[in-house]
Amino acid sequence: MDAINTKLTDAERIDWLRLIRSDNVGPRTFRSLVRHFGSARAALARLPDLARRGGASRPQRICSEADARNELERSERLGVHLIASTESGYPPRLAELDDAPPLLGVRGAREVLMRPMIAIVGSRNASAAGLKFASILGRDLNDAGFVVASGLARGIDQAAHRASIEGGTVAMLAGGHDKIYPPEHADLLEAILTLGAVISEMPLGHGPRAHDFPRRNRLISGASLGVVVVEAALRSGSLITARLANEQGREVFAVPGSPLDPRAAGTNDLIKQGATLITEAADVIQAVEPIMGRPIELREPDDDTPLDVEPEASDRARIVDLLGPTPLLLDDLIRMAGTSPAIVRTVLLELELAGRLERHGGGLVSLI
Amino acid sequence: MDAINTKLTDAERIDWLRLIRSDNVGPRTFRSLVRHFGSARAALARLPDLARRGGASRPQRICSEADARNELERSERLGVHLIASTESGYPPRLAELDDAPPLLGVRGAREVLMRPMIAIVGSRNASAAGLKFASILGRDLNDAGFVVASGLARGIDQAAHRASIEGGTVAMLAGGHDKIYPPEHADLLEAILTLGAVISEMPLGHGPRAHDFPRRNRLISGASLGVVVVEAALRSGSLITARLANEQGREVFAVPGSPLDPRAAGTNDLIKQGATLITEAADVIQAVEPIMGRPIELREPDDDTPLDVEPEASDRARIVDLLGPTPLLLDDLIRMAGTSPAIVRTVLLELELAGRLERHGGGLVSLI
Repeated sequence: MDAINTKLTDAERIDWLRLIRSDNVGPRTFRSLVRHFGSARAALARLPDLARRGGASRPQRICSEADARNELERSERLGVHLIASTESGYPPRLAELDDAPPLLGVRGAREVLMRPMIAIVGSRNASAAGLKFASILGRDLNDAGFVVASGLARGIDQAAHRASIEGGTVAMLAGGHDKIYPPEHADLLEAILTLGAVISEMPLGHGPRAHDFPRRNRLISGASLGVVVVEAALRSGSLITARLANEQGREVFAVPGSPLDPRAAGTNDLIKQGATLITEAADVIQAVEPIMGRPIELREPDDDTPLDVEPEASDRARIVDLLGPTPLLLDDLIRMAGTSPAIVRTVLLELELAGRLERHGGGLVSLI
Repeated sequence: MDAINTKLTDAERIDWLRLIRSDNVGPRTFRSLVRHFGSARAALARLPDLARRGGASRPQRICSEADARNELERSERLGVHLIASTESGYPPRLAELDDAPPLLGVRGAREVLMRPMIAIVGSRNASAAGLKFASILGRDLNDAGFVVASGLARGIDQAAHRASIEGGTVAMLAGGHDKIYPPEHADLLEAILTLGAVISEMPLGHGPRAHDFPRRNRLISGASLGVVVVEAALRSGSLITARLANEQGREVFAVPGSPLDPRAAGTNDLIKQGATLITEAADVIQAVEPIMGRPIELREPDDDTPLDVEPEASDRARIVDLLGPTPLLLDDLIRMAGTSPAIVRTVLLELELAGRLERHGGGLVSLI
């Protein structure tokens, strides 16, 4: 699954789509399932059984082949290509993430996704100075060969996109490709598509809800070498993107502002916490140049082994007892469980598919 | 000379004043002379001979006892006390410097000099936001028990002083106490004197010239635990103060601003170079609190030995040959000179008093 540039067959793409669109299957579970069972098709066959054993309170909805085929066809009619994380054309930095979307809906001039990307994000109600700075930065980064990634929002996002329409820009959506948010940026999106790209991991028809934005933000930071926060109040969405960037090992840049300007409170705070203060594109370029030379880091293969055994009820009970709402390291759980890692991983998959387990970053799991 | 709290006799104070007011005797030379000859009086007796041997092109002017007595009397009439670096009442952090003024003219409520000090400096043509920030910062630092040091200039300096008139402020002058610059701040100076203090190392009647300001800036930073630069264009005087603060081992703080505001270019640049970004007094206090606990560091006594020998002409010629306009480490010079450290130091003193040698910080010397 980790070998890059392995093109899926049509049947495999349908299987992948069915698996990721089924209840309680997120990117991390998807990956575990395919590793455990060898393929998406094999995993699909085991889903009902696993979820039942995990104690699902209601039957898990599994995406049918017809539904998957329908989504694929409608996507293609809209010019959206569903690219797998193992295929060429998938944004290489994004493929490094352990929660990289298995299938990414890509629209527009896909080749921009292969170029080095810098994210520019910030306040929706930005100041004139902030908007101007985002424009200058976007253009200067383009001139230096970088593609500008952002979230199509009002304010800083749209200023960054507009400035880089000709030089290359990528918009990451929180909803499906047919649910543009905010709606008044439909024209901006069309302009981006000519020389840039728009990506989403959500199904068509999915209108973005509040919790979809932080999820989407991980794509903005994950696909980029670094994230520049231009203006941000305290406790704003851009700071979530900065936090995710930091967790993903991406560079975090912040544009300073007067302490008397509340729109600079978040960026100044980021700098206090260790983000790099930048005042021009050269500052960003200087910091990411050494990183660009490094090869893309493929994820370490887990030592999962395909499973034929069904865990004993007593194993399952002991593991559930060890878990709680506080995130626990998977390695600690395995050590404490007194059974094989394969059994522990299978029980976790069962719980996950039953909607009872949450996987956090850094190998942490908790009961819901 | 380094023992703190040794009160000078009246005669010693006259000797000290004569020595520091004589041609080519700066704070570092003063210190070397007193170390070499045991007292200011003994050094005064040797000055003409040393300068002649150093190759002075014209006779060195030595301050007469009458002139010194006259300055002392006029100072006292103006309420200016000349405090020696070895006496109590001298700002303790300032006494740490190897170029601390041997005698400091102090006017006003001298006891503020004993409290922990933070310098606030910045642009003369500051923005309204910068002035407001300097006021808030000055007041908040006062409330936390700190005295605010600055340079009585227009803009940020005066805003910082005005905000801290009641809570404690110290103005460092570039000229003599009777040559207030800028003249329109005479009223501000009077207001400061009530609960704060004004200090100068220059003689009465000395109108400040351009090169006196960087010299004065070392007092602002040296007397303080740290220096806050509120607004500064690139290549401005406040950046000199920040550089001096850094060389003196003082904390350097900078207030961020928009990259589009040229008055923030200097402060943003300081942060890029490692200064601490601050947006409120709490940031400053948090950084200096650990330092306040540390004892004042007395200067290490040099291993100077009182001199009875006159260097050979050949020693002098070799040392002059080794020196040039490029600053050289004293230790390297001693190693290369092939003679005793005492001889090298004596030759340097001679050259210095002849106006042919410049001493830089960090033990560097060069020919003028």
